[in-house]
Amino acid sequence: MTDPATLDAADPLAHFRERFALPAGTIYLDGNSLGARPNAAAHRIAEVVEEEWGEGLIGSWNAADWVGAPRRIGDKIARLIGADAGEVIACDSTSINVFKALCAALSLNPGRKVILSERGNFPTDLYMMQGLAGLTGVEARTVEPDEVEAALDTQVAVLLLTQVHYKTGAMRDMAAVTRRAHEAGALAIWDLSHSAGAVPVDLNAANADFAIGCGYKFLNGGPGAPAYIFVAARHQATAQPALSGWFGHAAPFAFSDDYRPAPGIERFLCGTPPVLGLAGLECGVDLMLESDMEAVRAKSLSLARLFAERMAPVCAEHGFELAGPSAAEARGSQISYRHPEGYPIIQALKARGVIGDFRDPDVLRFGLTPLYLSHAEVARAVEIIGEVMASGAWDRPEHKVRSAVT
Amino acid sequence: MTDPATLDAADPLAHFRERFALPAGTIYLDGNSLGARPNAAAHRIAEVVEEEWGEGLIGSWNAADWVGAPRRIGDKIARLIGADAGEVIACDSTSINVFKALCAALSLNPGRKVILSERGNFPTDLYMMQGLAGLTGVEARTVEPDEVEAALDTQVAVLLLTQVHYKTGAMRDMAAVTRRAHEAGALAIWDLSHSAGAVPVDLNAANADFAIGCGYKFLNGGPGAPAYIFVAARHQATAQPALSGWFGHAAPFAFSDDYRPAPGIERFLCGTPPVLGLAGLECGVDLMLESDMEAVRAKSLSLARLFAERMAPVCAEHGFELAGPSAAEARGSQISYRHPEGYPIIQALKARGVIGDFRDPDVLRFGLTPLYLSHAEVARAVEIIGEVMASGAWDRPEHKVRSAVT
Repeated sequence: MTDPATLDAADPLAHFRERFALPAGTIYLDGNSLGARPNAAAHRIAEVVEEEWGEGLIGSWNAADWVGAPRRIGDKIARLIGADAGEVIACDSTSINVFKALCAALSLNPGRKVILSERGNFPTDLYMMQGLAGLTGVEARTVEPDEVEAALDTQVAVLLLTQVHYKTGAMRDMAAVTRRAHEAGALAIWDLSHSAGAVPVDLNAANADFAIGCGYKFLNGGPGAPAYIFVAARHQATAQPALSGWFGHAAPFAFSDDYRPAPGIERFLCGTPPVLGLAGLECGVDLMLESDMEAVRAKSLSLARLFAERMAPVCAEHGFELAGPSAAEARGSQISYRHPEGYPIIQALKARGVIGDFRDPDVLRFGLTPLYLSHAEVARAVEIIGEVMASGAWDRPEHKVRSAVT
Repeated sequence: MTDPATLDAADPLAHFRERFALPAGTIYLDGNSLGARPNAAAHRIAEVVEEEWGEGLIGSWNAADWVGAPRRIGDKIARLIGADAGEVIACDSTSINVFKALCAALSLNPGRKVILSERGNFPTDLYMMQGLAGLTGVEARTVEPDEVEAALDTQVAVLLLTQVHYKTGAMRDMAAVTRRAHEAGALAIWDLSHSAGAVPVDLNAANADFAIGCGYKFLNGGPGAPAYIFVAARHQATAQPALSGWFGHAAPFAFSDDYRPAPGIERFLCGTPPVLGLAGLECGVDLMLESDMEAVRAKSLSLARLFAERMAPVCAEHGFELAGPSAAEARGSQISYRHPEGYPIIQALKARGVIGDFRDPDVLRFGLTPLYLSHAEVARAVEIIGEVMASGAWDRPEHKVRSAVT
């Protein structure tokens, strides 16, 4: 049986752990939902609040370069996702950026009127498609995950997919699917919410057209951190931003009546940048940039294999079933199981300090974040799962009360 | 001549000053662009970062009620703008909320295809209209400010106006214009960015349909703070949210494939709430709620009259001209002047600690924020304007260099 201590002793990323705030007595397996707090974020956000806002006041837009933050952070995120400087900008929420990317893609493919995605995609991606369809008359079409490529017909303007599935962790071959979309005359938008910072991503090698992603999961940007949008350089001069707010204007402080989009990625900005959220996001991204994504992936696979190995007997005895692909290589940086009592089991685990989460109807998700998780913790977490099942500790009324956020 | 010390001695709001962080040696006349920092915000944001994010991690969505913040803060803002609980929600940027309100208004008035606004409105309002027009084929129409009411013809679906003009401070009669819009079969959206927290606002007395506004100006919510949207209760069940993100879903954590809007104001949420920004915003709103908006208005008018009285000789000698209405009652909580050398004059004033701002082509803006500004400061600021003009200190090359943000 794999020895966690041996693996931890050889872990080249182990030193990152001390760079994060993590409460004692907690094994945090939910960094795929809300990343842990980099220590640097506390200092940096206090600096923004106390010095830049409190002392610098309005002057900090220039003096502290608040105005440059969306692009500066976008350029940093670009390095994590295989994009070039000037192709990514940090702004708004993932949902809003999905809408921007869809509108821009449709503007580049005006003869076609169908947005294609898969059933069971992260809901907000589907909801934003539906909202845009209701507004403009384009069609929001979804098919089963294994029917996507066959559904790329001559009506499809744009394909919207998530690289790593939020529930099962199943990972798509971005390059192959993008190639297939292009062959069918469609553009491809990739949601990287569960892949950026979790697995190596190479948007330009895949020839992706657009991407969007979340700042508060594997990028550790803080609760509700700003998201980001990638627009391939080749599309930037022609893609029309439908959410054409003043910060996307070529000259916002000319205050002219007519919108004229900024020449580059800045045209995908909309309103005034959220300075506090951007400060948190930058700390998370900076820390991720100190690591090497190949090393992160290697450790993620090692953690996942250990998790699965230790879970095998628990599965056999207590009725868990692995959700998603069985090979760790085919998943992102999480592992999920199905169990009909998933909700109370997750609550009982939380009561024992093992923090995962639950996704309807029966999925227990465990995020594997290589920067701040050890093999020993993974092994101990699975032990606790076994204990909670063997003792029946999950089967208590208090664990069956539904919270607003699961 | 009015004596500032006498006015300050009788000021019932004077005690609010110590609740804000303001740097020594600065007279801050730009709270209409970025409000000063409430002292409470430093403590509260640190608590969110250190305890709620750092210790509570994902559990804080429930335990610290992050999930309830947009509605809780919205209910508080409602009290400042004459709305009822459940009619306002804090979210996204003003620009995004303009888009939401326009789409929702158009969905309620489907036979008409024109959005009407005035030339010279705050640019992002016009730009968002233009973006929506490009996307959907509705018409974004603008007329001169004094032609708005006459332009309310049978094609106009919705009128988008700002209550207090960002440049001149000119204030519209919200009730009268809304009545006129309704008589013409149009809906009315009000941008309150320069009025909420600055003047008494009564949306429901005016029978307004929608409103949006900014969190970082007179509400003192922090740089790039979340904005808010008001939707009159009578429209909430039927207005369709086009930006239909997962947080606006009736059951976000059911993760279903089909969008079903929340029954109330929550349907105007979109992506994951920006927790840090909301924490700052709540501190600003809480502080504003401790004051009385009638007292705030009375002091604002007193500051404005003093400013104008002291500026009269400076205008005569140095060529400033009041911008906007001459009666303080006809303006919001700011006073603006036109001068052909406005840009370098504003820079020279900043170098002397008097912080106003410049708006192209020739407007010098001075925000009058009754919670943290004294009559003595206003009098001293005008003295310094006179000194900067008399000495020619504004006429230096370094004051003519344009910054990214003016």
